[in-house]
Amino acid sequence: MGRHSLREQLIEAAVAQFHTHGFNGAGVKDITDAAGAPKGSFYNHFPSKEALAVVALERYGAGRRIGELTAGPGDPLGRLREHFEFLRDEQIEFGYSRGCLIGTFATDIGDHSEAIRTAVRESLGRWSAALAAVLGQAQEAGQVNRGLDPEVMARFVLNAWEGTLISSRTDRSAAAFEPFFDMVFGRLLT
Amino acid sequence: MGRHSLREQLIEAAVAQFHTHGFNGAGVKDITDAAGAPKGSFYNHFPSKEALAVVALERYGAGRRIGELTAGPGDPLGRLREHFEFLRDEQIEFGYSRGCLIGTFATDIGDHSEAIRTAVRESLGRWSAALAAVLGQAQEAGQVNRGLDPEVMARFVLNAWEGTLISSRTDRSAAAFEPFFDMVFGRLLT
Repeated sequence: MGRHSLREQLIEAAVAQFHTHGFNGAGVKDITDAAGAPKGSFYNHFPSKEALAVVALERYGAGRRIGELTAGPGDPLGRLREHFEFLRDEQIEFGYSRGCLIGTFATDIGDHSEAIRTAVRESLGRWSAALAAVLGQAQEAGQVNRGLDPEVMARFVLNAWEGTLISSRTDRSAAAFEPFFDMVFGRLLT
Repeated sequence: MGRHSLREQLIEAAVAQFHTHGFNGAGVKDITDAAGAPKGSFYNHFPSKEALAVVALERYGAGRRIGELTAGPGDPLGRLREHFEFLRDEQIEFGYSRGCLIGTFATDIGDHSEAIRTAVRESLGRWSAALAAVLGQAQEAGQVNRGLDPEVMARFVLNAWEGTLISSRTDRSAAAFEPFFDMVFGRLLT
């Protein structure tokens, strides 16, 4: 196995381990075991678990389909709904065990690592900016109330989503997502 | 020092340690050190860290001023706003380092401990029920749109609050609370 592919396997294992167990709950050995790699190989690829966490967060963000919010097919409000339906279905598929890696890192390590806190803030900022952009498109298309500030709406919707994931992990039920879809699409934006 | 007061000190230390470091980040020794107690004394009072976490969560919930939502002075919508202002000010006072213990436990240990997941679900349920009750009062008083379901609103507002705390920990700024107050009180409920 080449050096490149082992690094990739460590990143993929780290995304899954951090996502399920959090930063403090996933040790270097858990990650190397999940990657099928000897523990000693870890430090050939990453200077620390913290450094790998920053890379894992970038990798996770790239899988959120954020680019499709503003440039995908369909109308803007439909794309916004599909975005959250995709994220909801992913949670259901994983048995409500994962939540959002960004929110998890914010909660369990962000206070204690400036590098991770910065990476979390940038991830939320990119996501929020894409949400604001599609909300602006939806306003132009007459689908969303033009009296609302897209940036404020985007931040609020993102916060509501992060909290909804907390509730879905606790309830382990798809019903936990209903208040989000009812209130955002049935009340807040119209 | 009597047995009762040492137990109390352990609970108080546990609330603070779990709140700041999460379940996995706060060890038994961190808690006994913070309580000024020998580590060996811990198991005279609690069978496990998990058992103490459940007690700490109850203690934390009792400090959320949930009872004042429905029975305090003032009008219902004013009480709802004061409730979240109190919680916001507490975050600011602690330098945005704590978030919500309920959300923290949901994220970092709820998947791995049925006892804690159950305690988290009950805490969120009690809080949500009190929010639904004050929202119902506000509807009767003509302060909140009567077309909305108080239970669905309550769940959504609570989720939005939990997500707002994540964002405030990451941004370390009071501005992180603005989308919540703007959208909930300026748009969602009216």
